Amino acid sequence: MSSHILGIDLGGTKVLAAVLDAEGRILARARAKTRGWRDDEEVFRTIIQVGHRAIEHAGIAVDQLAAVGICAPGPIDFDTGYIIETANLKFKNFPLGPRTAEEFGRPTIVENDVNAGVYGELKAGVAQGARDVLGVFIGTGIGGGLIVNGALYRGSSTGAGEVGHIIVEAGGPRCGCGNRGCLEALASRTAITRDIRKAIKRGKRSSVAKLLTKETDLLSGKDLKAAYDSGDELVRNAVNRAARLAGIGIGSLLNVLGPEIVVLGGGVVEAFGDDFVGRIERSARDIAFEINSKKVKITRAELGDDAGVIGAAMLARESLEG
Amino acid sequence: MSSHILGIDLGGTKVLAAVLDAEGRILARARAKTRGWRDDEEVFRTIIQVGHRAIEHAGIAVDQLAAVGICAPGPIDFDTGYIIETANLKFKNFPLGPRTAEEFGRPTIVENDVNAGVYGELKAGVAQGARDVLGVFIGTGIGGGLIVNGALYRGSSTGAGEVGHIIVEAGGPRCGCGNRGCLEALASRTAITRDIRKAIKRGKRSSVAKLLTKETDLLSGKDLKAAYDSGDELVRNAVNRAARLAGIGIGSLLNVLGPEIVVLGGGVVEAFGDDFVGRIERSARDIAFEINSKKVKITRAELGDDAGVIGAAMLARESLEG
Repeated sequence: MSSHILGIDLGGTKVLAAVLDAEGRILARARAKTRGWRDDEEVFRTIIQVGHRAIEHAGIAVDQLAAVGICAPGPIDFDTGYIIETANLKFKNFPLGPRTAEEFGRPTIVENDVNAGVYGELKAGVAQGARDVLGVFIGTGIGGGLIVNGALYRGSSTGAGEVGHIIVEAGGPRCGCGNRGCLEALASRTAITRDIRKAIKRGKRSSVAKLLTKETDLLSGKDLKAAYDSGDELVRNAVNRAARLAGIGIGSLLNVLGPEIVVLGGGVVEAFGDDFVGRIERSARDIAFEINSKKVKITRAELGDDAGVIGAAMLARESLEG
Repeated sequence: MSSHILGIDLGGTKVLAAVLDAEGRILARARAKTRGWRDDEEVFRTIIQVGHRAIEHAGIAVDQLAAVGICAPGPIDFDTGYIIETANLKFKNFPLGPRTAEEFGRPTIVENDVNAGVYGELKAGVAQGARDVLGVFIGTGIGGGLIVNGALYRGSSTGAGEVGHIIVEAGGPRCGCGNRGCLEALASRTAITRDIRKAIKRGKRSSVAKLLTKETDLLSGKDLKAAYDSGDELVRNAVNRAARLAGIGIGSLLNVLGPEIVVLGGGVVEAFGDDFVGRIERSARDIAFEINSKKVKITRAELGDDAGVIGAAMLARESLEG
């Protein structure tokens, strides 16, 4: 009986794999460092090894797998299962889907990591049973995913859900994407670090100054949280401002999408927790029309690192039923 | 045979009605001034009279109608068919659906006017056959509507599509909704007029100064177009800036929604035509990721005043097939 699914989450720092049973429960997990500076074939080897280890831990044989679902950063060609490109890995037009299918001898789907994470929260996390979901993940950048009428929504372009790249402050700070004033350029960890660095250069004092000696240094969620909790005024202001601006972006999206639930995740949300989410929520509700605010739930993601593998596995299962 | 549908569009200045045959062709039209300062019962009388006139012009009997679709500004309670409120009319918790159904003895649906307009363009206009559509109507305010997977999308809140109230310039000019920097506060006719009035107060010269003697004066699309064409520098700058900002908002929405087509309508778009649309388009494509820009068509609405009645009628027909 092939009723198990292998889910794999290829991230910038780690590769996660999990085997799910027919009921969607995780039977076993495996993980490894991505070491993304290596060439694409080496990283691909790691992906396959981690997958095999999860299968072994689950105590099943490969032929008990019905399908494989794999998620990865960057734009995906959904027709072919190719990764078009990735920011932090060397994959470029890499046939991730076909190659993985070949390795395991099983049908394989490839999904964007943020979409898979939102789908995981829909199927097994905080958004279970919801019809319309907006997922926003705040970390180094800001990613997002949409569930519409109970299904993952990629739009006609297949590139929908890029909520980090709505312009919230026209003419504002430059974003990694080249535009000015994107949500990502205002409320991500990269944006928070930039604001703190600038203020320090202008002479403000902060306990994190010693962590920002190189131009490329990026404050971690943990660094930021420690400084925030110790009462570092500069860090507190920068983080609270980011929460307010994230809320402005999310409030705008409530007016456009009218979701049932907003799921907030990512490193910054995980580091800061409920107080940060509360600030985002107040700012978002302040922007949204009453009709788009009164019933929506704004809440933290609950699956953490499992969201991607679960979502990818669930999408693989559904593609079989498709 | 009851195969005809009556569509009615209750607008702030006029009431339009049309009878559509089974193939969705308009057989006859009727119209009247809304005179929205009158009380709700009087305006309701006008709606019913205009409907009856359209039926008469079509040469059919009321019992040849299968259903009635009516669209109106302002939030609608879709469960009950009540208008919750309207900005320029005296309807407040008015049972527009039930009362209209009673008058014609036919099932009646009520829809938001902008949603109906976008749906009209989907069914009989420029967006025919599209799967995912973003409609943006730029006039006194900015309204919008979404088609997702071929169906009108209201979201879980029923209030989705409020694209005029995404924040494009945090901390920017005050919007009628109370927020700052909404798209409507940057790119509507109201926003253009405000910018021109401010510049005149600061001493700039413009041919439209004589039209702005009272604080409540609002420049019409026609006034703006005439001044623009005559080379009025102040008007040209204000209108071009509005187009650029509209494009920034629409570019953001391309990244979130990944639509197949963007339909631009409303008084300002109708007055200014293709040059204005071209400016919006360039600005939007400049913001959107390549994946969300390369295939999307950005174009003018083509049904004009008929969009609302056709959309409302089509929605009424579909509610019968339910």
